[in-house]
Amino acid sequence: MEMTKQSTYVELVEDGSILTPEGFKATGIHAGLKKKRKDLGVILCEVPANVAAVYTLNQIQAAPLKVTQESIAVDHKIQALVVNSANANACTGERGLQDAYTMRQASAEQFGLDPHLVAVTSTGVIGEYLAIDKVKAGITLLNPNNEAGAAVDFNEAILTTDTTTKQTCFQTTVDGKTVSVGGVAKGSGMIHPNMATMLSFVTTDAVIESDVLQKALSSITNQTFNRITVDGDTSTNDMAVVMASGLAGNQTLSPEHPDWEAFYEALKLACESLSKQIARDGEGATKLIEVQVVGALNDEEAGKVAKQIVGSDLVKSAIYGKDANWGRIICAIGYSECTLDPDSIDIAIGDLLTLKNSQPVEFSEEQATAYMTNKDTIIIHVNLNIAHGEGKAWGCDLTYDYVRINAGYRT
Amino acid sequence: MEMTKQSTYVELVEDGSILTPEGFKATGIHAGLKKKRKDLGVILCEVPANVAAVYTLNQIQAAPLKVTQESIAVDHKIQALVVNSANANACTGERGLQDAYTMRQASAEQFGLDPHLVAVTSTGVIGEYLAIDKVKAGITLLNPNNEAGAAVDFNEAILTTDTTTKQTCFQTTVDGKTVSVGGVAKGSGMIHPNMATMLSFVTTDAVIESDVLQKALSSITNQTFNRITVDGDTSTNDMAVVMASGLAGNQTLSPEHPDWEAFYEALKLACESLSKQIARDGEGATKLIEVQVVGALNDEEAGKVAKQIVGSDLVKSAIYGKDANWGRIICAIGYSECTLDPDSIDIAIGDLLTLKNSQPVEFSEEQATAYMTNKDTIIIHVNLNIAHGEGKAWGCDLTYDYVRINAGYRT
Repeated sequence: MEMTKQSTYVELVEDGSILTPEGFKATGIHAGLKKKRKDLGVILCEVPANVAAVYTLNQIQAAPLKVTQESIAVDHKIQALVVNSANANACTGERGLQDAYTMRQASAEQFGLDPHLVAVTSTGVIGEYLAIDKVKAGITLLNPNNEAGAAVDFNEAILTTDTTTKQTCFQTTVDGKTVSVGGVAKGSGMIHPNMATMLSFVTTDAVIESDVLQKALSSITNQTFNRITVDGDTSTNDMAVVMASGLAGNQTLSPEHPDWEAFYEALKLACESLSKQIARDGEGATKLIEVQVVGALNDEEAGKVAKQIVGSDLVKSAIYGKDANWGRIICAIGYSECTLDPDSIDIAIGDLLTLKNSQPVEFSEEQATAYMTNKDTIIIHVNLNIAHGEGKAWGCDLTYDYVRINAGYRT
Repeated sequence: MEMTKQSTYVELVEDGSILTPEGFKATGIHAGLKKKRKDLGVILCEVPANVAAVYTLNQIQAAPLKVTQESIAVDHKIQALVVNSANANACTGERGLQDAYTMRQASAEQFGLDPHLVAVTSTGVIGEYLAIDKVKAGITLLNPNNEAGAAVDFNEAILTTDTTTKQTCFQTTVDGKTVSVGGVAKGSGMIHPNMATMLSFVTTDAVIESDVLQKALSSITNQTFNRITVDGDTSTNDMAVVMASGLAGNQTLSPEHPDWEAFYEALKLACESLSKQIARDGEGATKLIEVQVVGALNDEEAGKVAKQIVGSDLVKSAIYGKDANWGRIICAIGYSECTLDPDSIDIAIGDLLTLKNSQPVEFSEEQATAYMTNKDTIIIHVNLNIAHGEGKAWGCDLTYDYVRINAGYRT
């Protein structure tokens, strides 16, 4: 099974966004947390949306994550999702928690909702108190709409060191009705396997219960958001949230529904697209790296090997240097702690086989350099020749700019 | 217990080296594997030396490691240790293995030894065949002696991207006799916890059985060589070897010997010194980072937390940027998978407390910047306030030069 193969019944929507599914509005504004750029946004649903969410595994969780989990726990529905950038409201103790509650309460008042229907999240610098007065004042200015520009405004408002906005949209048909899945993400540093190492917000108009949606999101997360790494750092703040408005008019989706697979595929493609966009926009990155591992003991080990390779600073530096240094790739495989036969590993960079049964193969360095120079996405193929496990992971090259960005982020 | 506190009965020997202990000679020459610099060296003992060794945990082990393990297995003694740099002879299959045997055989002939008394090791590029004819020719030119310059020649011959040689020597008294422990190391990239992520060769004239020496080395390795990280990559090649000539004339050492602690301390200080020298010379590094964790559940978890902090690219970049960004430190603590109370963590950078009970403390940014600007070694103190586990780890900052070095290493 080719995991990213787009099924014929799921279509990419060009220029589609979080506002393509029925029932959603959004906006993004400048509230004064950043110097000039947008820093506060909201996604608002016409109705309480069924919700699924996954959160960072970092034991230090930011205040807004706690408040959002509390909101969702009440009824597994939210109607408004309010995000600020520039400040993560993490490691801010009791005052930070109160700030997150204040942010939720102000949003509930602005949109006329029960507080438990509001999710809040923050991204940016850790350990500084939120300028809560600016956030409160900003919230009173949030006036969401469903025009195309509104999605762009929201997309921009959630960025930190990102260089581009990230959005996606797929459509499929369920019970003869069009069902859309739109998504937006931010994330470019502190990106590492093990959820949820970025902010990712997905909207859909599918009719689906929260528990079914949660199972689908958790399973998909393991093959998408948890398979990207930029720098091996797992953030305190990040999460992925799916809101389902239920306005598409289909019969309630579940794995027994004949069109379940189509919906699942659309959701998975949206999450995979956001994951790849995040990896490509890794801090300072010039290339997206995709590692495809086959022949592993099982899919889990394949994914682990793929992540180990794409997380190696030495591999990442070599790709920045356009150097087909497969020695570093096999080295990373060797310390993945997965089941290996040290003498049966094949490695190809693009179409160029460089290692067969763990021994060097003659290849054209010129071709290798040309591939790494000309392509935006560098694909590394690994066959462990053990069994039939398959998996992918995504990352980016390590560049001077990564260091520049992170040596001066706070100042 | 302050772990690096130098006991009064163990003394640092200024300018001491691997030749300070009785019974050792060395040399290093240019055999033509590098363009100009020295690339082949030997440590030779007057007598078969009792030996202990630890090896990389990478499942992909280079050919010379296999041959050296075979040598040592015969009698737990070696008399000559021959090293080449520039080429790691790793991932070179059957031919690589034959080359390692050839290197051992040529050395045995040169020094008139049984082959099993010869250890061989290689460091450098992975996946290219060794220029074995140059190595063989070079071996016939190896003419070790015990003058001070000979240690320097050997130290230089084992370097790859290192910017400086690394050596150390400590002395103590056992049964009224002077016992010396000298050491040399190379390593500057692919340095990560879990043995043996560099080459480290230690000589001593102590009388000690191989099995006792092995237990001491394994235990010390967990607190020294396994506590350094430069880039999280664990090499295919690296090892630490201790050779004991037994010429000091003491009674055979064992944990029951009244002077055991003095010898153990000397060996530990030598290994710790080499570890810190390696971390300080991390590729592109401008600072040594030492992380001291106290208050952990146990010593093992303290070490794990310390390594996680010192391995974080975000922490490393911040220190390069002279930015007291403790948010990244607590973030790294949070994903260490150790026992934590998220609300009880203290962090200080140098003497500056920045976080108390997981909440920000006002501190002078000017003082912090001054500390990070003026000091060569940046010390990060963490108290988890859980129990009494203590541990340290060492690393370096992440700089433009790390990327420059690794983007162009092979070319």
